[in-house]
Amino acid sequence: MKYDLVIKNGKAVTAVTTFPADIAINGETIAAVGLGLHGRREIDAAGKLVLPGAVDMHVHLQMPIGRFVSTDDFYSGTAAAACGGTTSIIDFVETAPEETMVAAIAARRALADPRVVVDYGLHMTITPGDIPKLDQVPAAFAAGCTSFKLYMAYGHRLNDGQLLQALTAVHAVGGLPVVHAENWDVIQALVAENVAHGRTTPHWHPRSRPALFEAEATGRVIDIAAFVGTPVHIFHVSCGAAAARIATARARGLPVTGETCPQYLFLTQDVYDRPGIAGALPVCSPPIREEFEQAALWTAVQRGDLQVITTDHCPFTAAEKATGLANYSQIPGGVPSIEMRLAAVYGGGVARGLLTLPQWVDLCCTTPARLMGLARKGHIAPSYDADVVIFDPEAPWTVTPQTLHETAGWTPYEGLALPGRVQTTIIRGQVVAADGELQVGAGYGRYLRT
Amino acid sequence: MKYDLVIKNGKAVTAVTTFPADIAINGETIAAVGLGLHGRREIDAAGKLVLPGAVDMHVHLQMPIGRFVSTDDFYSGTAAAACGGTTSIIDFVETAPEETMVAAIAARRALADPRVVVDYGLHMTITPGDIPKLDQVPAAFAAGCTSFKLYMAYGHRLNDGQLLQALTAVHAVGGLPVVHAENWDVIQALVAENVAHGRTTPHWHPRSRPALFEAEATGRVIDIAAFVGTPVHIFHVSCGAAAARIATARARGLPVTGETCPQYLFLTQDVYDRPGIAGALPVCSPPIREEFEQAALWTAVQRGDLQVITTDHCPFTAAEKATGLANYSQIPGGVPSIEMRLAAVYGGGVARGLLTLPQWVDLCCTTPARLMGLARKGHIAPSYDADVVIFDPEAPWTVTPQTLHETAGWTPYEGLALPGRVQTTIIRGQVVAADGELQVGAGYGRYLRT
Amino acid sequence: MKYDLVIKNGKAVTAVTTFPADIAINGETIAAVGLGLHGRREIDAAGKLVLPGAVDMHVHLQMPIGRFVSTDDFYSGTAAAACGGTTSIIDFVETAPEETMVAAIAARRALADPRVVVDYGLHMTITPGDIPKLDQVPAAFAAGCTSFKLYMAYGHRLNDGQLLQALTAVHAVGGLPVVHAENWDVIQALVAENVAHGRTTPHWHPRSRPALFEAEATGRVIDIAAFVGTPVHIFHVSCGAAAARIATARARGLPVTGETCPQYLFLTQDVYDRPGIAGALPVCSPPIREEFEQAALWTAVQRGDLQVITTDHCPFTAAEKATGLANYSQIPGGVPSIEMRLAAVYGGGVARGLLTLPQWVDLCCTTPARLMGLARKGHIAPSYDADVVIFDPEAPWTVTPQTLHETAGWTPYEGLALPGRVQTTIIRGQVVAADGELQVGAGYGRYLRT
Amino acid sequence: MKYDLVIKNGKAVTAVTTFPADIAINGETIAAVGLGLHGRREIDAAGKLVLPGAVDMHVHLQMPIGRFVSTDDFYSGTAAAACGGTTSIIDFVETAPEETMVAAIAARRALADPRVVVDYGLHMTITPGDIPKLDQVPAAFAAGCTSFKLYMAYGHRLNDGQLLQALTAVHAVGGLPVVHAENWDVIQALVAENVAHGRTTPHWHPRSRPALFEAEATGRVIDIAAFVGTPVHIFHVSCGAAAARIATARARGLPVTGETCPQYLFLTQDVYDRPGIAGALPVCSPPIREEFEQAALWTAVQRGDLQVITTDHCPFTAAEKATGLANYSQIPGGVPSIEMRLAAVYGGGVARGLLTLPQWVDLCCTTPARLMGLARKGHIAPSYDADVVIFDPEAPWTVTPQTLHETAGWTPYEGLALPGRVQTTIIRGQVVAADGELQVGAGYGRYLRT
Repeated sequence: MKYDLVIKNGKAVTAVTTFPADIAINGETIAAVGLGLHGRREIDAAGKLVLPGAVDMHVHLQMPIGRFVSTDDFYSGTAAAACGGTTSIIDFVETAPEETMVAAIAARRALADPRVVVDYGLHMTITPGDIPKLDQVPAAFAAGCTSFKLYMAYGHRLNDGQLLQALTAVHAVGGLPVVHAENWDVIQALVAENVAHGRTTPHWHPRSRPALFEAEATGRVIDIAAFVGTPVHIFHVSCGAAAARIATARARGLPVTGETCPQYLFLTQDVYDRPGIAGALPVCSPPIREEFEQAALWTAVQRGDLQVITTDHCPFTAAEKATGLANYSQIPGGVPSIEMRLAAVYGGGVARGLLTLPQWVDLCCTTPARLMGLARKGHIAPSYDADVVIFDPEAPWTVTPQTLHETAGWTPYEGLALPGRVQTTIIRGQVVAADGELQVGAGYGRYLRT
Repeated sequence: MKYDLVIKNGKAVTAVTTFPADIAINGETIAAVGLGLHGRREIDAAGKLVLPGAVDMHVHLQMPIGRFVSTDDFYSGTAAAACGGTTSIIDFVETAPEETMVAAIAARRALADPRVVVDYGLHMTITPGDIPKLDQVPAAFAAGCTSFKLYMAYGHRLNDGQLLQALTAVHAVGGLPVVHAENWDVIQALVAENVAHGRTTPHWHPRSRPALFEAEATGRVIDIAAFVGTPVHIFHVSCGAAAARIATARARGLPVTGETCPQYLFLTQDVYDRPGIAGALPVCSPPIREEFEQAALWTAVQRGDLQVITTDHCPFTAAEKATGLANYSQIPGGVPSIEMRLAAVYGGGVARGLLTLPQWVDLCCTTPARLMGLARKGHIAPSYDADVVIFDPEAPWTVTPQTLHETAGWTPYEGLALPGRVQTTIIRGQVVAADGELQVGAGYGRYLRT
Repeated sequence: MKYDLVIKNGKAVTAVTTFPADIAINGETIAAVGLGLHGRREIDAAGKLVLPGAVDMHVHLQMPIGRFVSTDDFYSGTAAAACGGTTSIIDFVETAPEETMVAAIAARRALADPRVVVDYGLHMTITPGDIPKLDQVPAAFAAGCTSFKLYMAYGHRLNDGQLLQALTAVHAVGGLPVVHAENWDVIQALVAENVAHGRTTPHWHPRSRPALFEAEATGRVIDIAAFVGTPVHIFHVSCGAAAARIATARARGLPVTGETCPQYLFLTQDVYDRPGIAGALPVCSPPIREEFEQAALWTAVQRGDLQVITTDHCPFTAAEKATGLANYSQIPGGVPSIEMRLAAVYGGGVARGLLTLPQWVDLCCTTPARLMGLARKGHIAPSYDADVVIFDPEAPWTVTPQTLHETAGWTPYEGLALPGRVQTTIIRGQVVAADGELQVGAGYGRYLRT
Repeated sequence: MKYDLVIKNGKAVTAVTTFPADIAINGETIAAVGLGLHGRREIDAAGKLVLPGAVDMHVHLQMPIGRFVSTDDFYSGTAAAACGGTTSIIDFVETAPEETMVAAIAARRALADPRVVVDYGLHMTITPGDIPKLDQVPAAFAAGCTSFKLYMAYGHRLNDGQLLQALTAVHAVGGLPVVHAENWDVIQALVAENVAHGRTTPHWHPRSRPALFEAEATGRVIDIAAFVGTPVHIFHVSCGAAAARIATARARGLPVTGETCPQYLFLTQDVYDRPGIAGALPVCSPPIREEFEQAALWTAVQRGDLQVITTDHCPFTAAEKATGLANYSQIPGGVPSIEMRLAAVYGGGVARGLLTLPQWVDLCCTTPARLMGLARKGHIAPSYDADVVIFDPEAPWTVTPQTLHETAGWTPYEGLALPGRVQTTIIRGQVVAADGELQVGAGYGRYLRT
């Protein structure tokens, strides 16, 4: 018996262990994991790690923010994802004022479906304008959007009463709320104070969004979620204090999860002190913080206090970033990392001895798939989708804009040396990227009902 | 040598100990504490407890709330206070939209000075409309208002950014912020939900203001105060969860204090299930809670997790309360206890063995005086103001409207049997109340620069 | 291509997920996990759960205690284990006074090797008499004993200085200390007090070994282990307070693990109030405790505060137990559960909705294998030993001595109704038990170098 | 009316406040605290602090330890205490093997009564040999010994079962257990290890008694005391970890108190690295520790996590200390500080702004008196014993053996500059020391029934 495709001789890595195995694929599905399997097509993975396709549950592609749209569209962003070993992403959808949630999903899918290279799902954003639409949550859920983004920051944040209402509605359908937790009123007061005193350079960006107020907001939404009785997932944790509030809640048995991102694991806030545009490029929220916070976050993922590493990929061009040079609070926020995440966590985590191989896969592949309800993603076992990454642990490279397929033209990780990289990415049995070259066309990816 | 007045043969009680002593007074001041002292006038206190005049740092007299004014004016309220052993109160002042803080103090003093029977000070209230007036905080401080009331609930609450600004301004002058901590946005959402479903009786009042959201707000303002670096005092703690956030902050070394009130120590939320107006009368905020919260609060004062017992005295008449019978959220909030506090804490605390005599004095007299900066109040020692209470620990009585001098015409403690009561109250050397009869006229009290 | 044996159509359960799969075995090893696999021999597992062979890292077979030897010898005990789905056990070895550790291992193996039906390893016990032999720890480690049992209770307990020495020696070779944590001096004082007052029935057994002093000893050995810098595993946690000390240590990042056992998850201390011998049979240490402790332990395994469920299987006959009827402290301690563990945790945990299927496998199979260093046990994946259990989740049965293969003649779980049971047990490719009938002879099992 | 003696014009300091006052004394008792009092004898205290006589509840005078006796006998030690402002001490008594507790008290009193200059009480030591004598605890209590010393270290330590028995017996009479908490078995193992490796200099003393094992023992005896339901006082806390276990217990409502001593507040462990005898002199147990522990202890007394500062005064001569130069574990342990404590805490605590004046008095005078049941000591108020200290806050001096009345001939604080000092010490109305000169003869002090 010959399988359609067999990845031979690799070292399989799952969230629980590693073992030598051939991975056999029939059609779009993993058919067998074994020794001595044979296929009509075979890929030799000797000396390589073979892992489940990575899941990035937090990306913003062609996302309109104010007068700009995030740099990577559904094509370039997913192409970069594919080259970096990410086989599923979860992006976002928002309703227009008069639009229903279902219509918004349809519209967003109309943009994405023809362009995506990897599989994708959508978080439904709930803004204050959506509170009257909360009766549409079941319909959005039925349309495949089972997670709901709630902002505690920015102009479209929910106040605590609206948070309570939104959490209640999401809980009623068994959805998962995902939250941007910062204290917006405090941030606005600090920004106003800084700007009033002429403190307008990006240096002041982290100083306007203190870690304590990310922790406070995190604790607050956990309190509200506990009152409602709902699980809640905290996005982009950037500091030890916020991670501690999540850990404390979990120790009390509350169904709270949290994620961090490469910008918080690899960068420190002195990036904002670079002169000119260089200091403006890495502006994102929560901000990149002091070095001890970086250490605290590595400890948090190591101990399981945070369960997921995502990217919050949301770059803008240098020209767009430059529009805020006169006032850091006007810089469009976001950094790219959709392509380097998997290799970066390997390099910074596994290669440095902070994480085991199974922890790496758990953080980047298995747990995000589970949280997003993707029952066929994030693991290597028969009947799972044949989303597989072949990773070469001994292929050193240095991150530069040229080594990436992202389109922002810059990366905050420029110069970061990493010991290994993705060699081949397979989605549903199809090689979508190999040696940094895309192998499929726009539209190969599919919409995922999460 | 004869003193003007000697209180003889009593058992003196201070925050640190008890001892037999005569208390000698010259003019307005304690001149000596000793044995065998003699005065031109002498009061025999054999078998009685002699303690510092009680300080109630949280009362609302003739306080305008919406279309009503709290029932007790500065005369009747302070007369009741005096009969109950309270010799100093701290009331509140608010600015009108175009009014300066100093002018508001002057206007409030014009109301109070001619009426008060006991000494009084004022907390300056800072509402959102006062944020542009924060540069007046030093002037208010200089005018004797050194504590500042910040609301996190009601229409005039401060948002978190405004809290940050107000705390910063108060801290700059060394003032003490005092805070009503509840999460107003959540409360509004729950009230709207209840009213929308026809749940309009007072039964729903505590169910619209959950203990968890008092705790959350308490923790939040502690976080903001920690960021600013300022002490903060939490008003009317009604539940164990809020007390725990204070205790946790104190264990970390933060300068946080908290108080509770008789309504939370003696009543339980089933008062709201009484039929008709009876269920409406005890409406106050935070609400009276479940029985286990009462136990938690006694434990908190016993262990020192809460440091002060005040009253938040703010009654309205039954007719005024009745205006909200169709919708509990429209009932003017507040209950009376200005007169019974000292005897109640003795009965519920000391006589039951939960508190020592020094703890009783510390909670009701010494620590509130210290927090309010009243260097001559709250203790019995030479050079302190001669504010002294003679308390008979074996004079049982039952609380009824008729046994009190308050004017609301009702009391939520009706029927409460107490083992001891205040016999004589002396302020600055003058007997102001004896055996439940007022001995001085309106205006005897003085404005206190706190 | 045909495999030697394929288990077809089952639902595979691993520590991370479940999936439909055929399990293919060649020789002693899992060769493939896939769909549509075929074997020269096939077992249909349709409707069944297929899981890794269970690992019981805490059993006492033919264990001499005083004048008795635990009832099940290496044959009957491992036969029962096999019928219950346990494919690897870890037993114990002690040195005689003049015996080296290596000689003791050889002697113990001489007893076990010809008798065992399942694979087995040995914990080396370190008593005070072994402190001078600590230089033999590397030799014992080399002989396959990599875990070391340290008693804080009983006559051969180590004092804290000896604990420090033993932990240091074990840590130096990278071994794992496993600890019986109770405060023996306190227990002795309480037993003496009870016996002196004629309180000699088993009712007094749990009252002589308070939960607080299991927690205390647990915390103490964690402190000592932290000083040494070594991991430590806590045996048979019986109460929430001890679990909490483990959880607290883990939250601080300490490499501490813990286990509980069926007697603590399914029984309550009123078993000791049964009349006559019935109350003596369940005597074990730590004792079975109050009902709230049972709930606390289920919560602990659910949250991951405890990571393993073992048995501490160590039964004695009713006649042997009866020798202590005049004084509970003389009753030989221990209860049987080697056979029912897997089915019991399924019934009490999974079927009641407290645990997921992967958690069940993690607690009973995967984590104990990992802790014991059994790199080829505890998981279903190619190259792992073909230790597989076919479990029928819908085969209700009631535990009685007759339904078990244990030899004590009694079980404390008599009458316990369970919803599912083990159908087939395979070790290294060989069916060792099917439908409750043993299929292999004594000596099939092998010694495991842990 | 003229009093026997009036201390005029000073600033009185009590545990709760400070105030200008004259202190009037009749006979042995404080008769009045007032303004404008007059006496047949008057002492002017203008510009001075007037505080209650200090209570040192932990001293060892003429204490036999092995072949030596602590340097200061009841005369020289109490003379030094008096010169330093300490008016009451609590020393120790032990029984000889065949001696009853009451006889031991009588024998100890026969030594002390004729010699003491200040009032004194005794802690009854309970060693393993006293366990059979626990039925004498009520008689010892009746003889005035109401506190009982329990050692967890040294050869005569109690094991945990004996601790349980002793705590139970002391609790039955309402006595207070006071505990030396270190883990002796661990210490012995570490000492043996060090000595075996030739690490015999005092440098190894703190490294043989790790802070973690003081914390562990502290937590352990708190657990045992909680089981018994008794208060417990922890002696000579030397590290933050032990203070934290006390603070945690107190936060849970347990009646636990703790003390620290000057050696832990003013010295750091580098004293043990001084060459020759200089490194041996400061050997005491628990050892002096790292600098960060010093800071942690100041924080602990500031926050009230520790409630008392005592001395554990127990010096030996340089010649006696030198007998252990070849092996640090043989050095007789103990340092002197009976005379400098009050001035040192003023200098290190009050003058540096870490403590308020009332906290100083509370730590050194009021709380130790209350813990020891000395109802007439530790406070300035009528009917209290006229134990008064006049302290000059602006009289700088430098500690040297010559400035002290202790007899050891050395002090570990040599060279410590302090800003203020005791001017006059009064016990029961009698000036016992003035300007560093003793004013009364041996035997002035009295035995205190604590």
